[in-house]
Amino acid sequence: MCNVFLLWSAAELHFPESPVSRMRSRVSSMAAGSSVEWLKSVKGVILDMCGVLYDSGERGGQAIHGSREAVRRLMASGLTVRFCTNETQNTRERFVQKLRVMGFDISVSHVFSPAPALIHILRERGLRPRLLVHDDLIPEFDGVDMSSPNCVVIGDAADNFSYQNLNEAFRVLIGLEKPLLFSLGQGRYYKETDGLKLDVGVFMKALEYACDVQAEVVGKPSAEFFQTVLSDMKLQPHEVVMIGDDLLNDVGGAQRCGMKGLQVRTGKYRPSDEQHPSVRADAYVDDLAAAVNAILTDH
Amino acid sequence: MCNVFLLWSAAELHFPESPVSRMRSRVSSMAAGSSVEWLKSVKGVILDMCGVLYDSGERGGQAIHGSREAVRRLMASGLTVRFCTNETQNTRERFVQKLRVMGFDISVSHVFSPAPALIHILRERGLRPRLLVHDDLIPEFDGVDMSSPNCVVIGDAADNFSYQNLNEAFRVLIGLEKPLLFSLGQGRYYKETDGLKLDVGVFMKALEYACDVQAEVVGKPSAEFFQTVLSDMKLQPHEVVMIGDDLLNDVGGAQRCGMKGLQVRTGKYRPSDEQHPSVRADAYVDDLAAAVNAILTDH
Repeated sequence: MCNVFLLWSAAELHFPESPVSRMRSRVSSMAAGSSVEWLKSVKGVILDMCGVLYDSGERGGQAIHGSREAVRRLMASGLTVRFCTNETQNTRERFVQKLRVMGFDISVSHVFSPAPALIHILRERGLRPRLLVHDDLIPEFDGVDMSSPNCVVIGDAADNFSYQNLNEAFRVLIGLEKPLLFSLGQGRYYKETDGLKLDVGVFMKALEYACDVQAEVVGKPSAEFFQTVLSDMKLQPHEVVMIGDDLLNDVGGAQRCGMKGLQVRTGKYRPSDEQHPSVRADAYVDDLAAAVNAILTDH
Repeated sequence: MCNVFLLWSAAELHFPESPVSRMRSRVSSMAAGSSVEWLKSVKGVILDMCGVLYDSGERGGQAIHGSREAVRRLMASGLTVRFCTNETQNTRERFVQKLRVMGFDISVSHVFSPAPALIHILRERGLRPRLLVHDDLIPEFDGVDMSSPNCVVIGDAADNFSYQNLNEAFRVLIGLEKPLLFSLGQGRYYKETDGLKLDVGVFMKALEYACDVQAEVVGKPSAEFFQTVLSDMKLQPHEVVMIGDDLLNDVGGAQRCGMKGLQVRTGKYRPSDEQHPSVRADAYVDDLAAAVNAILTDH
């Protein structure tokens, strides 16, 4: 692990506007002072994956320009690096394999995704799920008792979010004395190579409204989920920075746990994120390559 | 129009429990006193249709036992009767035709449904909709400009609520400078002959969350929509009772307009409705036949 003083490349980082001026400005030098003080204590980096490392889409998607090299440099730097994804369209093993095909050499044990965390909860609480998930996630549930379901689990089911499947999940829920809904993440949408697509959070809200319940979210931005990653890193929240394209689930979720949150301007990023009324990233970065350049400058 | 004193058949009506005792009780006689005082001034009745007159389903659904005769008796009574539906799976004309096949002789001009009300709004505000509605509703939009959409309209699209169609509606919305979403009703679910099905409100909530907007609801429980019906009846709200199976959209909506609201125990009614924390019907009735019996007793 590397504890050296980290400096950010001034040209590549945009710090949030001041609440007073609402004017965006580039940090022109390290004289920006207190804005970058926190960088000194960063010992670890958590990377979101989809929209940061790659854009998903047909044939697994494609790496974002410069991100393969950026991940390689970061992992060689001595900083503690983990990957944290709400990806639920594959088992974790298949997902990592897909990333390898795209040129990312990542260990399965360094990737944190919602399904394994959920299965732990199901076993702990003796729950039998009805699944509304992507076909390719189903092997993750091998050995889980799914008879007489007493809860519903939704993931990013994509085309499986048909009217018929939603009705079936709804009927299980409404038939329970106390409907219990787990959602693997609560994202609004994500970017695939052919455009923006609705994410699981949208269907979570749909079923919440239908049954007048509140889902339990497993995955980002759940504090428990982030805490599992921090425990594995053996670092304190203030020592870690989360880099993501999702302002609310990556940046906001990490900040609520005491971490710093950086938003990259790739993936689902939209310029209006920088004027969000309640969540403000600690810095906005053009892409992962720029973020890693900044982290490792003078390193 | 008939202004006679109306009496309810005590055996057929259940008045809500007192907030203190939370014990359900039948009204055993007209000595219940103030609970039924309001009945004296009822001059008109608004009937919800699906779940009150019929259960929808294959081949148009089927009439609820006793409801045909009940509607006939009510219309012959001299009370002013209107029909108010959030049905958006057919044009109003086809819908009334479907009801005729089921044995209900209803005039199109007495039926109030969301699509004609919405089209009036679109024309008034110069809006061009992207539709996510049932195929059979589309003819209602004949002559409406749908080029370069600047709003999205969702109705009870049923099987058209596919992941692909939802994504397409979402992309139109998120591409607008200020996303504008109209929802034809906001129901949670309804009952078809083969079970409960998700209603348009569920998908409204989904798109609201995806785009961080609030939809404009056209249809029940919108006060403007109920007001249109009252204007046509030429009656004041306190003179009218709404009979529906939907506690929130029929009963609650009517009550917020100053009408009385009765819930029938057919259609989507669930026993837990009678313990709802915020909406309480002025009376609960087993079915439409029982309600009309009660209205017309001693009449």
